[in-house]
Amino acid sequence: MSGNTIGKLFSVTTFGESHGTALGCIVDGCPPGLEITEEDLQIDLDRRKPGTSRYTTQRREADEVKIMSGIFEGKTTGTSIGMIIMNGDQRSNDYSNIKDLYRPGHADYVYDQKYGFRDYRGGGRSSARETAMRVAAGAVAKKYLKQVHGVEIRGYLSQLGPIRAETIDFNEIENNAFFCPDVNKLEALDQYMRDLKKEGDSVGAEVTVVAKSVPVGLGEPVFDRLDAELAHSLMSINAVKGVAFGDGFDTVTQKGSEHRDTLTPQGFASNHAGGVLGGISTGQDIVARIAMKPTSSITVPGQTITNSGDTAEVITKGRHDPCVGIRAVPIAEAMMAITLMDQLLRHRGQNAGVSGPISPIPGSIK
Amino acid sequence: MSGNTIGKLFSVTTFGESHGTALGCIVDGCPPGLEITEEDLQIDLDRRKPGTSRYTTQRREADEVKIMSGIFEGKTTGTSIGMIIMNGDQRSNDYSNIKDLYRPGHADYVYDQKYGFRDYRGGGRSSARETAMRVAAGAVAKKYLKQVHGVEIRGYLSQLGPIRAETIDFNEIENNAFFCPDVNKLEALDQYMRDLKKEGDSVGAEVTVVAKSVPVGLGEPVFDRLDAELAHSLMSINAVKGVAFGDGFDTVTQKGSEHRDTLTPQGFASNHAGGVLGGISTGQDIVARIAMKPTSSITVPGQTITNSGDTAEVITKGRHDPCVGIRAVPIAEAMMAITLMDQLLRHRGQNAGVSGPISPIPGSIK
Amino acid sequence: MSGNTIGKLFSVTTFGESHGTALGCIVDGCPPGLEITEEDLQIDLDRRKPGTSRYTTQRREADEVKIMSGIFEGKTTGTSIGMIIMNGDQRSNDYSNIKDLYRPGHADYVYDQKYGFRDYRGGGRSSARETAMRVAAGAVAKKYLKQVHGVEIRGYLSQLGPIRAETIDFNEIENNAFFCPDVNKLEALDQYMRDLKKEGDSVGAEVTVVAKSVPVGLGEPVFDRLDAELAHSLMSINAVKGVAFGDGFDTVTQKGSEHRDTLTPQGFASNHAGGVLGGISTGQDIVARIAMKPTSSITVPGQTITNSGDTAEVITKGRHDPCVGIRAVPIAEAMMAITLMDQLLRHRGQNAGVSGPISPIPGSIK
Amino acid sequence: MSGNTIGKLFSVTTFGESHGTALGCIVDGCPPGLEITEEDLQIDLDRRKPGTSRYTTQRREADEVKIMSGIFEGKTTGTSIGMIIMNGDQRSNDYSNIKDLYRPGHADYVYDQKYGFRDYRGGGRSSARETAMRVAAGAVAKKYLKQVHGVEIRGYLSQLGPIRAETIDFNEIENNAFFCPDVNKLEALDQYMRDLKKEGDSVGAEVTVVAKSVPVGLGEPVFDRLDAELAHSLMSINAVKGVAFGDGFDTVTQKGSEHRDTLTPQGFASNHAGGVLGGISTGQDIVARIAMKPTSSITVPGQTITNSGDTAEVITKGRHDPCVGIRAVPIAEAMMAITLMDQLLRHRGQNAGVSGPISPIPGSIK
Repeated sequence: MSGNTIGKLFSVTTFGESHGTALGCIVDGCPPGLEITEEDLQIDLDRRKPGTSRYTTQRREADEVKIMSGIFEGKTTGTSIGMIIMNGDQRSNDYSNIKDLYRPGHADYVYDQKYGFRDYRGGGRSSARETAMRVAAGAVAKKYLKQVHGVEIRGYLSQLGPIRAETIDFNEIENNAFFCPDVNKLEALDQYMRDLKKEGDSVGAEVTVVAKSVPVGLGEPVFDRLDAELAHSLMSINAVKGVAFGDGFDTVTQKGSEHRDTLTPQGFASNHAGGVLGGISTGQDIVARIAMKPTSSITVPGQTITNSGDTAEVITKGRHDPCVGIRAVPIAEAMMAITLMDQLLRHRGQNAGVSGPISPIPGSIK
Repeated sequence: MSGNTIGKLFSVTTFGESHGTALGCIVDGCPPGLEITEEDLQIDLDRRKPGTSRYTTQRREADEVKIMSGIFEGKTTGTSIGMIIMNGDQRSNDYSNIKDLYRPGHADYVYDQKYGFRDYRGGGRSSARETAMRVAAGAVAKKYLKQVHGVEIRGYLSQLGPIRAETIDFNEIENNAFFCPDVNKLEALDQYMRDLKKEGDSVGAEVTVVAKSVPVGLGEPVFDRLDAELAHSLMSINAVKGVAFGDGFDTVTQKGSEHRDTLTPQGFASNHAGGVLGGISTGQDIVARIAMKPTSSITVPGQTITNSGDTAEVITKGRHDPCVGIRAVPIAEAMMAITLMDQLLRHRGQNAGVSGPISPIPGSIK
Repeated sequence: MSGNTIGKLFSVTTFGESHGTALGCIVDGCPPGLEITEEDLQIDLDRRKPGTSRYTTQRREADEVKIMSGIFEGKTTGTSIGMIIMNGDQRSNDYSNIKDLYRPGHADYVYDQKYGFRDYRGGGRSSARETAMRVAAGAVAKKYLKQVHGVEIRGYLSQLGPIRAETIDFNEIENNAFFCPDVNKLEALDQYMRDLKKEGDSVGAEVTVVAKSVPVGLGEPVFDRLDAELAHSLMSINAVKGVAFGDGFDTVTQKGSEHRDTLTPQGFASNHAGGVLGGISTGQDIVARIAMKPTSSITVPGQTITNSGDTAEVITKGRHDPCVGIRAVPIAEAMMAITLMDQLLRHRGQNAGVSGPISPIPGSIK
Repeated sequence: MSGNTIGKLFSVTTFGESHGTALGCIVDGCPPGLEITEEDLQIDLDRRKPGTSRYTTQRREADEVKIMSGIFEGKTTGTSIGMIIMNGDQRSNDYSNIKDLYRPGHADYVYDQKYGFRDYRGGGRSSARETAMRVAAGAVAKKYLKQVHGVEIRGYLSQLGPIRAETIDFNEIENNAFFCPDVNKLEALDQYMRDLKKEGDSVGAEVTVVAKSVPVGLGEPVFDRLDAELAHSLMSINAVKGVAFGDGFDTVTQKGSEHRDTLTPQGFASNHAGGVLGGISTGQDIVARIAMKPTSSITVPGQTITNSGDTAEVITKGRHDPCVGIRAVPIAEAMMAITLMDQLLRHRGQNAGVSGPISPIPGSIK
């Protein structure tokens, strides 16, 4: 229940640093009887995997997940599920030059201050490498939500630097290396990334995650509202600087008459709320957007200090993502799945005996 | 540990609905020896209190907090602190017309779906009235943080509808009824609110909360990062639709060379990060912004349905805030204080024995 | 989630010390729709109340519980339930003489060491007075368990000093002031207590709590086994020094062939296990026994030290229970109810979708 | 935070079943800077390991623990520590005959009822094999407690069937295969176990665990008292049916004048309390006793039913411990260490700033 665990009933605990022996996680509280294979998990792990396109880091990580426990005859037994990914490609020498350096925009300085010293190899625990286990755990949640409630969780790159997706075609997302739903923006994205690479710089991005067919009623006010818990889990992803639901920061300039979603017998007439009212799911699409900062691992030289307080120049060579937002798509999906799953079980625990009130109205009018 | 508790070591559990007998909370885990009086708590409660200006609801709530336990001879004893605010002004009849109606933008529909029925008086537990106890609990955390670590937590209205504060003068904030730090915008705000009242409409807002002098090292990666937990606690406030740190959603279009904050022996040269790197406080100001949606309690007529699925018209009369963002300032401060306090104790638990590494560099260069 | 909260889904958080303004608790996570009145709670509070017989302390505590929230039109709404008992009979002066004294067998010394000082009035938070709120919260759990699953939780005094109940007649328990199930021991108990009073001494006791008709399957291995969580909640009652299930410490000398409970198509042939196997309920009676130490508040003079380290004599005058085990009966029932309730909701959260396996066999053969 | 995690700040989460691929655990919240090697953990794992003497099961388990993360340059980094033990000796066919059988005294029946089916190989998750990871995690806690506070945690077999250790010589414990502190009882134990083996039966035992030099002040009333949390963790060990502190169930017949431990300037004059008063450590030895039931895996034939409800005979062949209490000694030490460690960090979190009150008096007068 310390900082490396998330979820109260469906709990995910992870371990592993960039250059350790292995990454791993324990998924506890999964309902029994769910069919799960390593292949199920590998699909999303491969979507997150670096080295799959020229737009992401060329570091190759096999990221082969092995299930160690909790599955018997192909099904979850209800006991804790252990998983491991062995770390293969450990080029420690790539990083030895940053041992004494506090890279700006990185966690080097704060880890030293918090813990007294740090594992400087590839960022240690603060490396985005730990997110692999989130994806593996999220795949378990995704499968259950899909199978039992028909929930679909889909993420996409809604913006990269100045380029914003305008047409949202869910069928396009997996057809390109950007997870971009707008086929008309692919060329611009490609050109932008080529230029960025030449500059040796990086860029921010916005990722949108949508959960469809979420049952009405999930969320535990007043503190563990569904949106509050999703904000927690999404903000816990490396490089995320903002989380918003529905109209998000646009609501600042909206009027009440404009924002409120009209209910009709056929369903909600709009979804400004992003699928959450009063911290509880409405049955509409849950729409979350996250802002991903540009990575600080760039070859543009910068100023910083060493751990003895001396000034120094820093250039981060090596194989890094110029836009971490791209690979964040499956990670964001995983975190949403983990939190929805936990909230589903918590809701069921308290309310399983509730005799259904009126039939839920449909989500949104198409 | 169900949904009405927040915090792991410094835990706040609340109860109370809009028209119940009383609101209350239990603050558990507060360090012993802190001098606390009811007056200390009342200061912030009065800042949140409705009826204090013509821009907020004219409903009068005495909001007088009583401490029931946990204090002896003026000091916290280390045991749980119980607090109560009796509900005085309970005009239940104001709300009887909404008994069968699902007000758009409100939690009526989802509460019925989740729990099978609801306390329809004034929104019941989903009313913003519950935030009074957050403010009382937050005042305890604020006082400890201030006294022991010199932490200052200050919130302000950074935007209301189209009007954005441009000069941030912390000394101005408490001088006006808007918690606005920009004296030059007061007239525009006054005019805007008068017009809004005539329209019978409401408007959104952005609130900014800043914590100064936070020790370096707070935050529990990978899931309970400081920003992730702050996102949780801030998003748990009614009407919040977005949370961002530092440059927030502006990072989407930033480049890495532009975003990263240079470290110098004199301190950080900028604070794009908003005081958090890798989920851990840097010693710079923690800067969080939240987007508050416009309240749906307006006199502009709208369409909706009843709990039998029939269409109906809704007009919310009564005494409501045309901009809930204004009174959210002390609430946002309180939630930040509660989370910082919890993280401080958690950090201390694990790391109290750590022999200090290098001296922390100062926050930001002025 | 600090030390004054118990339960993960059905959570009880309490506050209040012996001589504070009030005692209170928040029950969070209670399923909606349960009919609860203050009278329901008062029944068990009155059973715990001091001053009801000459065998317990003559201190009079009104112990009138008031529900502050979470109930609407007579039913739980699914939101947090706040309750208060105002402290009436506060004779602070009774206790002023122990201000600087560390009473042996009491928590005076350890509270001073842990927190730096203590509320010395009547033991402050360490007083058994706090158990009143456990009883109120437990009554909510009891009612739900009874109504939805037919669970009956009954406690009794199984031993007081050398006198052991031999016949267990559940119908006798409420007919006498000792909660003793053996009508033949009442005279001996009465005589023993009279003698004890003359001596100015106190005596230990054993309380047994039995839960009947508990569903098969409750318990969350490997750490949150049903018996482990019950051990936690029962051991958290003041003065408890031992907890045992089924044959308890008698198993030390048993052989496997003697201990194991045979399963037959008609049910278990015996219940040496006390209703729990592998940390999960079997459907048989859950039988827990707790050892209650003799209170140290006696008029027999004793040696001790002051907080300045000087030796001193201590005599505890005032109105104290010569056997705290008697009034512990409703408290032990309450703690068992709270833990069973929490485990029921947790089980339901994870396993609600499990399609029933074979029909459960009946509990025990009569 | 589901059932396979224990501890709030120092958290241990485990996975793994008898015949799965591997056992594993994640230790989260360990203070940074502690020197830990695999050898440190192996010492206690070897003490627990089966096949080390003729009195325990002849099953050979290599039980070689591998640390996967959280250690850098020989020291804990403050991040989560992943550990694995690969399962080697998996003779699945030994157990195929029990697939449809509900072995009396085992968890077969309740697992089927709870989860809908079960991993029947060697008891699956309900096998005592999972305790290996408790021992590995406990070794981390032990080392920290020893190094930073000089805490020594020692367990021993205080009784086996009718044979009770009378002389407690801590130096004898590791000299014999019984963990027996009384050298005069070794011959009787040897003879008893030989006879038991001939009978094909098993026997119960009592294990005592003592923690010396525990700081005064650990424990979080009112629910997370030190003894309540220790009761939880000790009762969570397979086969434990009772937990008691200090005089335990003997207090039932004690008088107050006899039980209370006199405080003197030289320390406590006795330790009837077992080192805990009011749920808080006193600085005396913490003395816990646990009752271990006789294992039900015996060759004495017994009656039971199958999962279709038919009667059947059961004989458990294979390699089983005739007295599980013997190997439970290092497990009980581990659980005590884990809980003391968690309580130490929790205490430190809340009270680190407390300026020491009077100097603690010494533990017990020798």
